[in-house]
Amino acid sequence: MKLHILGCHAATPSMKGNPTSQILEIRNSVFLIDCAEGTQVLLRQHKIKFNRINHIFISHLHGDHFFGLPGLISTFQLLGREKELHIYGPSGLKEVILALLRVGNSWTNYSLVFHELQKSTSELIFENDKLQVRTIPLNHRIYTNGFLFSEKPKERKLNIAAVAKYKVDKAFFKNIKGGKDVLLDSGELIPNSLLSSDPPSPKSYAYCSDTAFDLSIVPLIKGVDLLYHEATFLSNEAQLATRTKHSTAVEAARIAKEAGVKGLLLGHFSTRYKNKKAFIDEASAIFSEVALAEDGMILEI
Amino acid sequence: MKLHILGCHAATPSMKGNPTSQILEIRNSVFLIDCAEGTQVLLRQHKIKFNRINHIFISHLHGDHFFGLPGLISTFQLLGREKELHIYGPSGLKEVILALLRVGNSWTNYSLVFHELQKSTSELIFENDKLQVRTIPLNHRIYTNGFLFSEKPKERKLNIAAVAKYKVDKAFFKNIKGGKDVLLDSGELIPNSLLSSDPPSPKSYAYCSDTAFDLSIVPLIKGVDLLYHEATFLSNEAQLATRTKHSTAVEAARIAKEAGVKGLLLGHFSTRYKNKKAFIDEASAIFSEVALAEDGMILEI
Repeated sequence: MKLHILGCHAATPSMKGNPTSQILEIRNSVFLIDCAEGTQVLLRQHKIKFNRINHIFISHLHGDHFFGLPGLISTFQLLGREKELHIYGPSGLKEVILALLRVGNSWTNYSLVFHELQKSTSELIFENDKLQVRTIPLNHRIYTNGFLFSEKPKERKLNIAAVAKYKVDKAFFKNIKGGKDVLLDSGELIPNSLLSSDPPSPKSYAYCSDTAFDLSIVPLIKGVDLLYHEATFLSNEAQLATRTKHSTAVEAARIAKEAGVKGLLLGHFSTRYKNKKAFIDEASAIFSEVALAEDGMILEI
Repeated sequence: MKLHILGCHAATPSMKGNPTSQILEIRNSVFLIDCAEGTQVLLRQHKIKFNRINHIFISHLHGDHFFGLPGLISTFQLLGREKELHIYGPSGLKEVILALLRVGNSWTNYSLVFHELQKSTSELIFENDKLQVRTIPLNHRIYTNGFLFSEKPKERKLNIAAVAKYKVDKAFFKNIKGGKDVLLDSGELIPNSLLSSDPPSPKSYAYCSDTAFDLSIVPLIKGVDLLYHEATFLSNEAQLATRTKHSTAVEAARIAKEAGVKGLLLGHFSTRYKNKKAFIDEASAIFSEVALAEDGMILEI
């Protein structure tokens, strides 16, 4: 899993910071998470091939999370896209995207498939043989979801030396990778544990932005490898965070601690903060495995 | 008059070129002409104070000319704007802007005043004591207007030495600047030509993008100081220009020549052309006072 932070700032694009968008590369899929104004150019800077993007997840319909989507849809058309594009986001998204196309007498030669979300409980919204995506209902001023990306368990690793030693036929390999024992022609039963080893554990990534501090998400994100949680404000603006339904760095750290995640990445910083060191200081007092997102950052999970 | 070319490329934002937006500073007013994705950040790069922008002119509803407008409207709100914002553009613009605000449960504390255009003949859409703005109906795939910005004649320049010599009272100065003669108490009539000189001639700027080659605009832009005319293609793509209702560099030059403009600025280049020298070569064979627009360029007219 590789995470590209295209933008991690709140509210508005500026010369110093891009509003929210991320690319998650996971088992050969490329997912775009939120799509603020400017995302197209950032995708080019990150050398992300546009035709690898088939699924876009929009958390909520505030401009700093989706005003780059109409332009990206237009650019896909200009690039001659033919493949379906799946867009997951709140009800209302389809209506405005189609209205923008309509007033421009524009269209797409590819299918735009909208998956409009309106549930207030977590739901499975994408699944293939390698991974799942579930919503994480968040608590913001408007209907908002985070997204949990979970790899499925990989096949067990074949122990090449052992299968040679026992002269196991290739026909059994698939079963061995699936955890089965092998009964040799001689009648000897070779237990799977001798023939294979545990695969790398499946990874998971939880994206939670924008949201007020809300412990109800904890069961959904329990033990994830990486949690991206918004931290728009520092403690000095805790009241403003409550009023605007955003979180402080301390609140993000409390969520990470309660959920026992392996790592916390803070983002969605208010542009009022020039120096971000205090975000780490405040969060790490509660949860030590914390880092700050930065525009342009690429992380291996 | 000062013109800032924020972006002058066709179709889509890239690392090499921004789609269309311009700022025209004229007699203390600041006009934004088109507003592609990314305009907000370019305004900051050009150090244009956001609260000086009170009038935005949108030529047509293709994304590369207005997908930056929703974000700019949101940013005005975040910056605490209270002044009215006037937006001039095709019918349909109001509907989609309001829909985008509505799905985000967002609003503006300032008044958004839409001036929706639908006439196919030139009309006066803005006027104050210093200048006028008229539409230039263009010929594109969808309803499109260019815009003609014309200064009104300035006051005549007072000849300080002459008014001292004739001992003309200050009370007459306003009349002299307005072109009137002065009758002295002695009964002597002093002709205005002795007391004042011609003011600088009023300037005019015509913005024409996007459009097919269409001579019908010539009477509207006759003799302007600067014509910005789109030249999406070179002659090698003349058929594509016709089909997509864009212009070639040669066609833009023919318009400039027919209209007898003082200068021609070419823009809206297709991103297929890496080297733009051929645009000058082709256009200057027909009209010599021609230059290429460049992102970031600032011109005094």
